[in-house]
Amino acid sequence: MRPEIFCESTTIEVNAACELAYHAFEEFSQKSDDDRSKFLLRIADLLQIYREKIGEIYCAESGLTKDRFEGELFRTVRQLINFSNEVKSSSWRNASIDTANVNQQPAKPDLRKMSVPLGPVVVFGASNFPLAYSTIGGDAAAALAVGCPVIVKAHAFHAATSDLVATLVVQAAQETGMPDGVFSHLHARSFRVGQELVQHPCIKAVGFTGSHAGGRALFDLANARKEPIPVFAEMGSVNPVFVFPEFLKDKSKKEKSAEMLANSMISGMGQFCTNPGLIFVIENENSADFIALLSKAFLNKETTSMLHVSIKERFDQGKVKIERQGVDLNHSVLAAGNHSVNRVNQALGLIKGCQFIQDSELQEEVFGPFSMVIDCTDLDEMLACCKVLKGQLTATIIALESELKDQEKLLFQIENKVGRIIFNGVPTGVDISPSMHHGGPYPATTDSRFSAVGIDAIQRFLRPITYQNCPDELLPAELQNRNAMRIHRRVNNVWTTDDVIF
Amino acid sequence: MRPEIFCESTTIEVNAACELAYHAFEEFSQKSDDDRSKFLLRIADLLQIYREKIGEIYCAESGLTKDRFEGELFRTVRQLINFSNEVKSSSWRNASIDTANVNQQPAKPDLRKMSVPLGPVVVFGASNFPLAYSTIGGDAAAALAVGCPVIVKAHAFHAATSDLVATLVVQAAQETGMPDGVFSHLHARSFRVGQELVQHPCIKAVGFTGSHAGGRALFDLANARKEPIPVFAEMGSVNPVFVFPEFLKDKSKKEKSAEMLANSMISGMGQFCTNPGLIFVIENENSADFIALLSKAFLNKETTSMLHVSIKERFDQGKVKIERQGVDLNHSVLAAGNHSVNRVNQALGLIKGCQFIQDSELQEEVFGPFSMVIDCTDLDEMLACCKVLKGQLTATIIALESELKDQEKLLFQIENKVGRIIFNGVPTGVDISPSMHHGGPYPATTDSRFSAVGIDAIQRFLRPITYQNCPDELLPAELQNRNAMRIHRRVNNVWTTDDVIF
Repeated sequence: MRPEIFCESTTIEVNAACELAYHAFEEFSQKSDDDRSKFLLRIADLLQIYREKIGEIYCAESGLTKDRFEGELFRTVRQLINFSNEVKSSSWRNASIDTANVNQQPAKPDLRKMSVPLGPVVVFGASNFPLAYSTIGGDAAAALAVGCPVIVKAHAFHAATSDLVATLVVQAAQETGMPDGVFSHLHARSFRVGQELVQHPCIKAVGFTGSHAGGRALFDLANARKEPIPVFAEMGSVNPVFVFPEFLKDKSKKEKSAEMLANSMISGMGQFCTNPGLIFVIENENSADFIALLSKAFLNKETTSMLHVSIKERFDQGKVKIERQGVDLNHSVLAAGNHSVNRVNQALGLIKGCQFIQDSELQEEVFGPFSMVIDCTDLDEMLACCKVLKGQLTATIIALESELKDQEKLLFQIENKVGRIIFNGVPTGVDISPSMHHGGPYPATTDSRFSAVGIDAIQRFLRPITYQNCPDELLPAELQNRNAMRIHRRVNNVWTTDDVIF
Repeated sequence: MRPEIFCESTTIEVNAACELAYHAFEEFSQKSDDDRSKFLLRIADLLQIYREKIGEIYCAESGLTKDRFEGELFRTVRQLINFSNEVKSSSWRNASIDTANVNQQPAKPDLRKMSVPLGPVVVFGASNFPLAYSTIGGDAAAALAVGCPVIVKAHAFHAATSDLVATLVVQAAQETGMPDGVFSHLHARSFRVGQELVQHPCIKAVGFTGSHAGGRALFDLANARKEPIPVFAEMGSVNPVFVFPEFLKDKSKKEKSAEMLANSMISGMGQFCTNPGLIFVIENENSADFIALLSKAFLNKETTSMLHVSIKERFDQGKVKIERQGVDLNHSVLAAGNHSVNRVNQALGLIKGCQFIQDSELQEEVFGPFSMVIDCTDLDEMLACCKVLKGQLTATIIALESELKDQEKLLFQIENKVGRIIFNGVPTGVDISPSMHHGGPYPATTDSRFSAVGIDAIQRFLRPITYQNCPDELLPAELQNRNAMRIHRRVNNVWTTDDVIF
């Protein structure tokens, strides 16, 4: 394959993209839900039509496998279809109507509220998901779905994939009659372009998936603006797993869960944001068995390439840092016969609960196939460990149902730290159903109130507006007396799809 | 009445309140909706039982009238009742259920999502609403409703009212079995106490109503924390009014709307956040008549006291500053026979549209009975004025329905700048129905996505959490298969109050 060269976007190009997006906003946000829905579906079509070409570039550029490409493309397409369906249903408008009551004291006006788009959104491509969280991934698709123009800052690790996908998005925009500037795509390796985008007055929100350092820097920039804007940064997580003692008494359960967890830990070479990085057990002979099984299963897994040489280097540095904290990593072995580029050795650390409580650096994420087992003396120490945990995307509980019955205190602490709790499963594999919450308290994200996955992700790019005593004809169709679209509305505090009748 | 002295809270007291609130959170957030509902109703009861005593202190301290007290108490009580009803309905949980599908590729897990409280909330008393937006006003009631303990920083202008109301809230908490620390009340005149509260690691959100300088300072402090937290600051607005030319051709409409607007402008001595501060007209003889009528009506209104001598001084300084910008204020007259304390003269400025576009300082709020008429040459200049407007809580349109039909561009610009649009009415008088949105783009608020008024105000203090493959018995009642409370849930993307049946 011929290498391609992409040029760093200039400040002039950044400004042009922002101003174009701002001008496109008026027309784009007033397109019908049907029209925007068609735009999203056409993108999905084009992704499938150009599947082979995208796959070739994706695999060459990222080092990820063909299977992974297929899975990620399928997910990206499904996300576009889901958002397209949601937009057509118009329930995302959160329509609410309270009719007037002149007899009330003070007189109650007619009030009708619905959500409208925020304005142009900047999306940063994620290093670890060239498709599903990048150019036309969850963030971009959610913003476009509700009428926010999008500017994508491509991730330099997969610039060519991003460039091809962007071309298809622009083609779909043209074919479905969307305004110029509805989607722009900028290349950059330096921080400058991202910084300029976030600071531009035409930009009204930001979506980011990446490191804590990167997310926090953008969050700080956005808040220092004269007009601060929301930044939805998903910044990683160490996804604690709590393994309960009764569960491990069963030999078959112990073996199965060790294998399941090891598969999750090696999945995507540990480069998923839901990678299980901390495994809490209660120290006894069953847990010692479990650790031995887990360690063996994990360390025997075949490794593939890391996403980029810089991620490989950071992983190796992270391991060295953890070792300096006094953690024994000699569980690590070199998987035999693996000669792929950017290869690393997976590693499993082992520490005591009291060490974990004392040293907050031990819960810093080492991005890649690294996890740490924390041996707790008892459930009280596990609770104490949980209390010092930072905010996380997920927590996983591996337990018998019966042994959780009197663990309210521990379950409350876990709930208080995370956005999703998995029972007897693994955190990797983030389903895109409406009930998925992919988010969590800081530092997992910068805004625990919103999800980056599922149809509710579009709520990040909306704000409400109320019309008071507005003539019916001038109201948006969603709020008129006649509910022509049969959308779900709260009318005088009762949810209904009926017309408003006086 | 005997003057009372309140002491500045110490750092030790601030820390104690925050830690108590944090400890109370576990128990309080797990109280049943019914229990929290009873707590709110008991507060409402006590406010009515002690009505006379509160009224006496309120009027003496604030200089506000008895009528205003009655209205504000009624509103405060109604807010508590509304939140109490909403909490009992449990619809605020935003419950969403997607059942498992093992045949799907990849297999779909069982996912159940609902909203949970953020944690302890700090509320700052507002200078202009000693009851409805202070001690147990909208912010505090909304936070308590969903299980967030509250710490109130009393506003020094009405410390005695706040102190009495706080005593009643604590009494209600004790009578209804709420945990110690569920509500704390701190006095302060300095900024120190507020700053310490916002920076305390136990605090998870902040509600504030006041000046832009104050709100922005708290927002910046909260974002600079190691763990940033949301600040819902409502920071004022100049609430533009757009008067259309055809409407003013009708003599009776012209007279009535001038009188209505003048009443709104003097209401609360212009100290409401929805005070109409900018009035855009199209320059012609009808609008000249309208301005004359408006000016006469407004300037003849009897004035009452401003809330505090410092607000009076800031108002007078604001007028001087506006005059220095070259604005003619000699419309101002001294209302005869008024000798109340902290009295000011209302004032009406008059400028041209081109001046407004060039000088952004002319849209700074002068808190008090001050408004400015902007004479635009035509609707295009009105549109140009609208484009330079900052974010606002409200906009008001005074027009014939027929003359708005081809004004999409102007209406879009207005919508893009505000949280509520009033048709042929006035912005003051904020109803508390569910469909009210009291918020707006920055600098009206720090977060345009949430309302400070109406039952949706509780959404500010919530975040979602998802349970994946959780055994039914361990799920919160709101998410179990049996919908025992008959709450409104999204089940496999359909809204229903039915049980989940397999």
